[in-house]
Amino acid sequence: MTNVNENLTEEIIALEKGALDKWFKGDTSGYLNIWSQQQFSYFDGTVQQRVDSYEDIKESVLAHVEGKLFADSYDFEYPRVQAVDDMAVLTYQLYAKTTLIDMKYNCIEVYKKEEDGWKVIHSTWSFIRPMDMDFGQAKSIV
Amino acid sequence: MTNVNENLTEEIIALEKGALDKWFKGDTSGYLNIWSQQQFSYFDGTVQQRVDSYEDIKESVLAHVEGKLFADSYDFEYPRVQAVDDMAVLTYQLYAKTTLIDMKYNCIEVYKKEEDGWKVIHSTWSFIRPMDMDFGQAKSIV
Repeated sequence: MTNVNENLTEEIIALEKGALDKWFKGDTSGYLNIWSQQQFSYFDGTVQQRVDSYEDIKESVLAHVEGKLFADSYDFEYPRVQAVDDMAVLTYQLYAKTTLIDMKYNCIEVYKKEEDGWKVIHSTWSFIRPMDMDFGQAKSIV
Repeated sequence: MTNVNENLTEEIIALEKGALDKWFKGDTSGYLNIWSQQQFSYFDGTVQQRVDSYEDIKESVLAHVEGKLFADSYDFEYPRVQAVDDMAVLTYQLYAKTTLIDMKYNCIEVYKKEEDGWKVIHSTWSFIRPMDMDFGQAKSIV
């Protein structure tokens, strides 16, 4: 692995953790700032259809997450970044006991370098082995 | 959208469908040919950990899918390709009643242009709204 890639790996992970740090304090502004306004798509484990625009995801998170989702801490596990010069995919596992849902997620975040920096153009948050989960308390967060 | 991107969208979708056509006939060679041998990662809805190498996914599918998974047909829905020159993410929904599992999947396929053509460097197949599913019959396919 080259130094360039190591630097990019650190940069992408820092962007993601910065957004997560706010996310678990009911503050969606971190993701709203790194989600691409030019092109965006999102699969959520609780939603039937793909979200296909920044406007749609913004409306959803402002309604359902902003000021409502909190966790004292979260675990960000096994990050891996695979990249070319202007696009990268970050995968990791995310664990958090939140006020809305017990998160055990496989996260896939596809970043693209835009004029004003790296932005997420596709995101998937899906359940880790949902057959092991009790969905009795699960609520859609978007 | 430029013609270049339209052509790339068609090319990526054709690669994926070519692999799926074989997949549902118990033939894993289509994916074995397009999964990157240089770098590969995979999240499966039935598996706790990310698969992190071509060798590991090859071993899994040869043991659990090759010659064992069949479906008369499949539905490939809502494909979307987001790309730069040498990397692309294809997202779609996949529906199939197979001999192993009733598939209702959100699929994320990240392609990278390598020396010998476009290869999948990351793949996630996750359940669409697993809280609606009956996992009584579900078996791990990898």
